[in-house]
Amino acid sequence: MDQPINLGEKLGLLSEHWSPRVVAEMNDYQFKIVKLEGEFVWHSHEETDETFMVLSGSMRIEFRDRVIELGEGDLYVVRKGVEHRPVADAECSVLLIEPKGVVNTGEAGGDLTAKNDVWI
Amino acid sequence: MDQPINLGEKLGLLSEHWSPRVVAEMNDYQFKIVKLEGEFVWHSHEETDETFMVLSGSMRIEFRDRVIELGEGDLYVVRKGVEHRPVADAECSVLLIEPKGVVNTGEAGGDLTAKNDVWI
Repeated sequence: MDQPINLGEKLGLLSEHWSPRVVAEMNDYQFKIVKLEGEFVWHSHEETDETFMVLSGSMRIEFRDRVIELGEGDLYVVRKGVEHRPVADAECSVLLIEPKGVVNTGEAGGDLTAKNDVWI
Repeated sequence: MDQPINLGEKLGLLSEHWSPRVVAEMNDYQFKIVKLEGEFVWHSHEETDETFMVLSGSMRIEFRDRVIELGEGDLYVVRKGVEHRPVADAECSVLLIEPKGVVNTGEAGGDLTAKNDVWI
């Protein structure tokens, strides 16, 4: 990587929802931008924590026993193995940070499972 | 972590320069906020990459053979073992992402070496 990654510029290239795109790698971790709108599927990642950082808009992460509301500039780490469901009433842009190889729907699978390791 | 971390609020609590403060952990990685002003020391981290994300202001990362300019919303990953020097002409706020245990001055040491693993 010889140039900085501008997250706003990268977001401008992404129109699909629920389709994470890799923008950078650090060791064996990846930074991915994703746009959310609507309700995702309940899922968990058995092997790793997963970090959400809201770049614009707002969203919530539903857990089986509570809901976490996130706005611009908020960061939240979902712990490994914990079932969660991201929901955005209106389009929300997020930076995900997690190890390379994490699939967006975790153990759940289904139609919203995105192709992994796609760069933008 | 039961509540989201608001990066702007956390920055409001930090006045010292060159003193990273941990705001969250993901697996064995840490998210640290830091305010930069002036010239840091030349150093490298032999064991790991290190990610800079500019939250406000602007900075540059000097390398022995080039300079990378970073503004708000820019992300840059310094590769492990590569000598670099962060410089900010005016105060700049940054989110650092790197494995737990990384010392700010890397192999160089000196007066600007900050106490590690201090949370805010």
